Amino acid sequence: MTKTVQTAVAGVTGYAGAELARLLVKHPRLKGAAPVFVGRVDEKDAARGGVPLTEIHPGLAGGYGIAGLKQEPFSWDLLVERGVDVLFMATPHEQSREWAPEALKRGIAVIDLSGAWRLNEAANRAVYAFSDEGSEQAAALQAQAVYGAPELHREKIRGARLIANPGCYATSVILAVRPLVAAGLVDIEHGIIADSKSGVSGAGKAATAKTHFMYAADNLSAYGIFGHRHTGELLEQIGIAPENMTFTPHLLPIPRGILSTIYVRFKEKQTRESVAKVYQEFFKGSPMVRLYAKELPQIQYSVRTNYCDIGFAIDKSGRRGIVVSCLDNLLKGASGQAVQNLNVRMGWGEAEGLE
Amino acid sequence: MTKTVQTAVAGVTGYAGAELARLLVKHPRLKGAAPVFVGRVDEKDAARGGVPLTEIHPGLAGGYGIAGLKQEPFSWDLLVERGVDVLFMATPHEQSREWAPEALKRGIAVIDLSGAWRLNEAANRAVYAFSDEGSEQAAALQAQAVYGAPELHREKIRGARLIANPGCYATSVILAVRPLVAAGLVDIEHGIIADSKSGVSGAGKAATAKTHFMYAADNLSAYGIFGHRHTGELLEQIGIAPENMTFTPHLLPIPRGILSTIYVRFKEKQTRESVAKVYQEFFKGSPMVRLYAKELPQIQYSVRTNYCDIGFAIDKSGRRGIVVSCLDNLLKGASGQAVQNLNVRMGWGEAEGLE
Amino acid sequence: MTKTVQTAVAGVTGYAGAELARLLVKHPRLKGAAPVFVGRVDEKDAARGGVPLTEIHPGLAGGYGIAGLKQEPFSWDLLVERGVDVLFMATPHEQSREWAPEALKRGIAVIDLSGAWRLNEAANRAVYAFSDEGSEQAAALQAQAVYGAPELHREKIRGARLIANPGCYATSVILAVRPLVAAGLVDIEHGIIADSKSGVSGAGKAATAKTHFMYAADNLSAYGIFGHRHTGELLEQIGIAPENMTFTPHLLPIPRGILSTIYVRFKEKQTRESVAKVYQEFFKGSPMVRLYAKELPQIQYSVRTNYCDIGFAIDKSGRRGIVVSCLDNLLKGASGQAVQNLNVRMGWGEAEGLE
Amino acid sequence: MTKTVQTAVAGVTGYAGAELARLLVKHPRLKGAAPVFVGRVDEKDAARGGVPLTEIHPGLAGGYGIAGLKQEPFSWDLLVERGVDVLFMATPHEQSREWAPEALKRGIAVIDLSGAWRLNEAANRAVYAFSDEGSEQAAALQAQAVYGAPELHREKIRGARLIANPGCYATSVILAVRPLVAAGLVDIEHGIIADSKSGVSGAGKAATAKTHFMYAADNLSAYGIFGHRHTGELLEQIGIAPENMTFTPHLLPIPRGILSTIYVRFKEKQTRESVAKVYQEFFKGSPMVRLYAKELPQIQYSVRTNYCDIGFAIDKSGRRGIVVSCLDNLLKGASGQAVQNLNVRMGWGEAEGLE
Repeated sequence: MTKTVQTAVAGVTGYAGAELARLLVKHPRLKGAAPVFVGRVDEKDAARGGVPLTEIHPGLAGGYGIAGLKQEPFSWDLLVERGVDVLFMATPHEQSREWAPEALKRGIAVIDLSGAWRLNEAANRAVYAFSDEGSEQAAALQAQAVYGAPELHREKIRGARLIANPGCYATSVILAVRPLVAAGLVDIEHGIIADSKSGVSGAGKAATAKTHFMYAADNLSAYGIFGHRHTGELLEQIGIAPENMTFTPHLLPIPRGILSTIYVRFKEKQTRESVAKVYQEFFKGSPMVRLYAKELPQIQYSVRTNYCDIGFAIDKSGRRGIVVSCLDNLLKGASGQAVQNLNVRMGWGEAEGLE
Repeated sequence: MTKTVQTAVAGVTGYAGAELARLLVKHPRLKGAAPVFVGRVDEKDAARGGVPLTEIHPGLAGGYGIAGLKQEPFSWDLLVERGVDVLFMATPHEQSREWAPEALKRGIAVIDLSGAWRLNEAANRAVYAFSDEGSEQAAALQAQAVYGAPELHREKIRGARLIANPGCYATSVILAVRPLVAAGLVDIEHGIIADSKSGVSGAGKAATAKTHFMYAADNLSAYGIFGHRHTGELLEQIGIAPENMTFTPHLLPIPRGILSTIYVRFKEKQTRESVAKVYQEFFKGSPMVRLYAKELPQIQYSVRTNYCDIGFAIDKSGRRGIVVSCLDNLLKGASGQAVQNLNVRMGWGEAEGLE
Repeated sequence: MTKTVQTAVAGVTGYAGAELARLLVKHPRLKGAAPVFVGRVDEKDAARGGVPLTEIHPGLAGGYGIAGLKQEPFSWDLLVERGVDVLFMATPHEQSREWAPEALKRGIAVIDLSGAWRLNEAANRAVYAFSDEGSEQAAALQAQAVYGAPELHREKIRGARLIANPGCYATSVILAVRPLVAAGLVDIEHGIIADSKSGVSGAGKAATAKTHFMYAADNLSAYGIFGHRHTGELLEQIGIAPENMTFTPHLLPIPRGILSTIYVRFKEKQTRESVAKVYQEFFKGSPMVRLYAKELPQIQYSVRTNYCDIGFAIDKSGRRGIVVSCLDNLLKGASGQAVQNLNVRMGWGEAEGLE
Repeated sequence: MTKTVQTAVAGVTGYAGAELARLLVKHPRLKGAAPVFVGRVDEKDAARGGVPLTEIHPGLAGGYGIAGLKQEPFSWDLLVERGVDVLFMATPHEQSREWAPEALKRGIAVIDLSGAWRLNEAANRAVYAFSDEGSEQAAALQAQAVYGAPELHREKIRGARLIANPGCYATSVILAVRPLVAAGLVDIEHGIIADSKSGVSGAGKAATAKTHFMYAADNLSAYGIFGHRHTGELLEQIGIAPENMTFTPHLLPIPRGILSTIYVRFKEKQTRESVAKVYQEFFKGSPMVRLYAKELPQIQYSVRTNYCDIGFAIDKSGRRGIVVSCLDNLLKGASGQAVQNLNVRMGWGEAEGLE
């Protein structure tokens, strides 16, 4: 009989953390061992054993088996003592850079939701300006890190020690474009354009001028033009040079969900069937991608699911393609994909606990 | 020929300030003299003569005659030098308590949008805990202050030196209830209930957990139950004891607008006609109140206007009445009413610059 | 070994129908037998065995085990042939009046989500103007029908043949008020006021002037004043005369969720503790009600759950109470409560399939 | 002394109609003669002289000088009798095709807000399938019609008899792209992509599945891919072949506003300055276009104004350009632009009545 896998979560206070808590607590493979939640806890709360999750996220109260759970003061001793096997980090980039090596030293695998370990090339990492950039330890760890897109790297994720969970925008674009590029259909020199739109939860829980209701509601704005930090992931995972990839994010007045409208030029005339076939083959055995045969996906269809929905249209000439992909930025774009990575890593059903 | 009235605005950076700027700049009586905008300005901006309003509120850019206007560093000398006649204060309470006496000393009339001067009774002011509470100066000034609800105190506002512009919630409840109470229709001992709902701009421009899009959107929450600080205004202006007035505000997931649903018990059987007549008489000569004969008002109808919309229903017995009142919290609930007060004070048409 | 219970759903095309499909398909007790979906199906679709649920509700596509399910042409023969035990009716009132007796004749229990069988008193039913009102059959059936509020009528629901699932507004008000009235705390003569606010899904899927985005968005409106058809349920289940119950619904600019703000007068001074105790005792053994000790519930907390959240505040005098209750109008207010009724009827865990 | 211009509006019942009413009633040049509103009016309403505008649009009630205005039963005699000079048609396409020639015959100039007269080429008109397509009269009239984009065709609009007011999406794309193409900067063969997003009012007042709050709220969807009927306007006004212009509209969950994100490839390296200069020269003397020097425009900035806001970014190579343009679909995208066209036609200030 095997021991239940013991998970831990650092950073449960944010939106991704709340979703992780919800998913892990109800995960059928984890019923035997509630996740350990760790983070910064002040003295007063430490004295009562941590902060109840239902205080941090009142919406989680009640029946989710979450009633007794607390965020406890972080310490490596605590994680070791509890026999943690896998640590989810929904923490800022710098913290992930600092903690991931510590976790691995203690034999704890890491699934990191930040941007800390996603990028192989220094040029792409530059946007994050990591304080340990260039250190040997960081370089060694980066070499081990697996980009956690199961649809692209399923084999490497199995048994991986450090999984870099993809960015939300990046997931929506990579899954839509990589199959076409891999099949050699796309005129890459012509350039690919990804016009992406995301709900406000993607901007995080911090109260800022841009997350204020009055800024986001009844509005739409483009930002990070020619410079959003998810661009590096696109370049590396799609395999495309910076001058050929244009990525424009927009802030939508909705709580959650991403829709990316992606424009590609085909090298040769394509048909609905030829393109559909490419997607079907690429995503064979990928339970968390839904292909749309006729209609295009909409944000509503994928919100509160772990699916990435993909549909497309081709013009009369067969040379212009528009791909529309949708996902929930907190699930397939963050915590759901993290659990999917756990499933793949452990050899469980890829969709377990995600439906 | 009379000199154009010179206005100034302290606190243009907030939502009410932006509306004030918009209204004053296009006010037909003020064409000759652009308002002076004053506030905290850092050195760098002071060196360029202040911060352009179009940088503070990009939405004001363009044709509003606002192009050249700046928020300049506040000083009394500046206001005196510019010959300011009337100072609008869209500032925090404490600042209004401190600045209003200084303005009056210099012969500058004040229309204050904060809660600083609205309340006659110390018991009601307690909720604000003003630092100068109890001082002679404050008491003297309070005695001079006129509660700026033109529909109730039109005569006193004419020529007033210190006008305390009413709270947004308070306006919506007082205008709905005062006429019925004044006419002796209401069983006050039975208690009056005002269930009010406001858009998020009412919570101000500060980015907080409660103004975060993720908190306000797709949500509704009650707050300040049995203790909202507008309650004192209701008591004094309606003329009712605390135990007979229940006021419950709620945060609506919309940018602007207030709807108050108000429950009263009549002493004697009323009819639609008897109640309509009371309202018609009370608001005769009040151009900024719209009475609804059949339908009830909705938030949409009054948003971006300076109207307070009032409608009502009576049950079969004629003893229970429900009044619904709507207004735009930034206009009739703040800056629009402030300009209305300016109009009344100056003897101009009450609705000038407000349509 | 017992046979799996076979369910059927009439009216899967609406919002409540979609939620029912989702809940029944994943219900742990119903794994062995997918629900039968029946309704009006045109000839062309009938020829292909019905309309796939994923065409009716694209958002249901994918992993919900819903892939192969279809809405088939309704016929009693079909239901009998499939061995249907329980028929959920998410159909218009008149259809439920017509079909419920037919189902019962065939030994099929009915859980009806419409208003057809909720009301014992003819005076209260008058608002629906049922075409069979006064018939013996209807009267006999009404006498058998159990009002499906498990927290009030758990015992009667066990084994009931016809369960009248409560209205969404009604649930939110009854669960908040009935405990206080049952304990004799409330001065009923003084009158109870329920100021309720609901998301747009409560208005149904029909495209009308009032469900148009432009009507509902950025708006709030009161409707059905002194006459909403849920009022009868309030009167009968709370046990209160019409003149003492005031119920005012409002249309909120959100997709789903109800918040009711309820005003009661206590006969004698109450404390936080005395009232909390009443609720705790009333809801002992009721897993789908969450009581809030300090904070008040908000719509967000209960949306997409089957909970009814209840919190309250008492004024200094101990005589005025405000109860705030929240629920998801499509779950605890409709389909979730219907499944809860199924659970109670069958003797299963009351919360099974609802967390 | 010149006679005041007499305007009339057919189709005041829609959203564009309401805005037209508001704008015309307060237009400083039209004070002397209230617009005549005409449309289908049933007998009962005809008997009372038509339907009051405040019944059609309750939000217009009150101070807009609109109190006494009515929509009267349409007849050519009525328009002639009232001395109508200019007829605004906010009517369906077919009606505009039928009525425009009739109006011109009677010496009444037409400003048509529909798509009836915008397109010179039969290939582009095909999408509308006009019933009189190919008739001599229609061809003759089309030859007279002027595309009502004042920034492009100011001279032709002066004194024009038939002005075809541009589509909302079309305006946002044409004003952003035409200057760059006219200056020869754009590599047209490479293709231009316009990814546009519009609020729900663009879909009109009819209650449909897609204007239902539950469809539009918390959602985003692409539609009309490779086939939206505004495409013909883009082709003709920008001067580009169909295979080089990709236009993708999306439905935003907001009431009003359009943002278009437009991707162009420059023939040669450009700088911020070189592009800014092109726009500045093109829009010299165009008061209703606001150019953004640094920031990008957002939907909020232009909503409820008649401005088209334009900003842009250029990548490091100077070869890729992204233009962001915003406008209010009911104003600059419909009724505001129609009034702007009236101003130009009459030789008045182009922005009169629009600020």
